[in-house]
Amino acid sequence: MRSYGGRVFLLGEHLRRLAASASFLRLRLPYTQTQLAEAVNLVAGGDSSIRLTVTRGQHTGSLSLETDHPPTVIIQAKPVVDYPEEYRRSGMPVCVSAIRRDEASPIVRHKTLNYLESLLARAEAAERGCGEALLLNTAGFVAEGATSNVLWVRRGEVCTPSVDAGLLAGIVRELVIRLCCAERIRVHEGLFAAGELLEADEVFLTNSLMELMPVRSIDGQEIRGGAPGPVTSRLVQAYRREVERSR
Amino acid sequence: MRSYGGRVFLLGEHLRRLAASASFLRLRLPYTQTQLAEAVNLVAGGDSSIRLTVTRGQHTGSLSLETDHPPTVIIQAKPVVDYPEEYRRSGMPVCVSAIRRDEASPIVRHKTLNYLESLLARAEAAERGCGEALLLNTAGFVAEGATSNVLWVRRGEVCTPSVDAGLLAGIVRELVIRLCCAERIRVHEGLFAAGELLEADEVFLTNSLMELMPVRSIDGQEIRGGAPGPVTSRLVQAYRREVERSR
Repeated sequence: MRSYGGRVFLLGEHLRRLAASASFLRLRLPYTQTQLAEAVNLVAGGDSSIRLTVTRGQHTGSLSLETDHPPTVIIQAKPVVDYPEEYRRSGMPVCVSAIRRDEASPIVRHKTLNYLESLLARAEAAERGCGEALLLNTAGFVAEGATSNVLWVRRGEVCTPSVDAGLLAGIVRELVIRLCCAERIRVHEGLFAAGELLEADEVFLTNSLMELMPVRSIDGQEIRGGAPGPVTSRLVQAYRREVERSR
Repeated sequence: MRSYGGRVFLLGEHLRRLAASASFLRLRLPYTQTQLAEAVNLVAGGDSSIRLTVTRGQHTGSLSLETDHPPTVIIQAKPVVDYPEEYRRSGMPVCVSAIRRDEASPIVRHKTLNYLESLLARAEAAERGCGEALLLNTAGFVAEGATSNVLWVRRGEVCTPSVDAGLLAGIVRELVIRLCCAERIRVHEGLFAAGELLEADEVFLTNSLMELMPVRSIDGQEIRGGAPGPVTSRLVQAYRREVERSR
C-alpha cells in the first residue's frame, strides 16, 4: 500500500482483498478490518510504502493448513523511494518474460508470498535494462506485469486483460477502470494476444507505488503514441485528484 | 531428509540438489557441502526428519534477487512420526487434485518454499479422507504427488513420469530407479495419461519420509494388484538394504 501525507490510499479496498484471500487460504485473521486499518494508519506516516503480511503463525511441524495458533500479522512501512524520474517523464522500458502465468492456478488471483516466479521475471528484466517484466499466460494471452497490471490505449479506448487471463486484480487497476468510466473512456477487459499490446498507442502499468507508469518500449520496440501519451496523462491527472480527495 | 540411527540417508544427494537449486535461484551458499553435511549430521540424532532451509538472508527492502547479505541457513530436526501403520500394511488412499502442475514453470523442478499449491492440494485430499493428492500437469499427463513422486507397476515393469512432465525429481525416486536397475526391473520414464495410472497393477509413492508408500486406491478405485503388491514389496526390501548399508 501507499500513504500520502500519512493517509493510506485505498486502505479499505486493500483490506477487503486481504480478507477475501485470507478466507480462501483458510487463514483466520485475528483482527477486524477496523483494527487492521487502525494499525496500518499508525505506522503509515508521511509518504510511505506499506506492506501488511499475514503468516500462518507458529509452525506446528506438519504440512497442513490447519493450526492451533493464531496467524501472525506484520505491518512494515518505509519512506517511498520513487522510480527513476526518467520513467515518469518518458516511460519505463519493459520486456516480455519467458515465464508464463498459469491462469489455471488457484493462487494466481491472490497476493501471496509465493512470488518467486515474479522475482525471477524481474531479475531477467533488470538484466535486459528494463524496469518491469510482462508475463503472458500459458495460452499466450497477455496476463500482467511481474508486480503490476498492464493497460493500454487503442483509438482512445483502454484495454486490459480480464481476471481469467491469470492475474492479480490490482486495487489501482480497479480504480483506473472506475476513473475511465468517470472520464467516459471505454474499457475493454478480455483475452488479448501479445501482438495487440505492441500495436497500442499508449501502454501503462499500475500498482500502488508505480501509480500509473507510462511504458516507453516493449522488448526495445517504442510505443507509437509516446510515453506518457495523452490518455495516460489524463488518467494520471484523474488519479492525482483521487489521491487529493482522499487526504 | 531422514536419518536412521543418527545417519542421514542420501545426504550427499540431497546437498548436491540443494547446491544446484541454490545456483539456479542465485543464492550463494555461504558454506561448503562438507560444512553443511557436518552441520546436518550434528542435529540428526536417532531417527529424525530433517529440514534444511536456505533463505536469501536479511531483507534489503527491494524485490530483487540480489542482496549484500549472505543467505541464512536453518537446519531443523525432529523425531520421525511415521504415517499410520495401516498405510504401510494395506496402502494409502490418494485422490487426483483439481490443481495442476505447470510443467513450463521454471521453479517446478526445484524444492522451494513456494509450495502453497501443494498445501492446498493436500488439504483437499485430507478432506476427502486421503493421505496424498496426485497432480496432473496442465496437459493432463501425470506429474507427481503434492509432496511425493509417483511410480506404478504394469506387467512387472515400473513406470514413472519423466522430469519434463513437471515435477521435482525426488532423491528417493532416483534411488528407486537405480534399485529397479539392480533388480533387473525395467523402468519407463515418460508422459503418461491419468488413465494408465488407474490401470496399474501396483502404485506407490516416494519421498524421504514415506520411503516407498503403497497406494491402496485412487479416487476410491482400488488398485488391482493390492497394496503393497509384489514388485513394491521387493523394492521396499531393496530400499531397506540400502538403508542398512548406509549406517
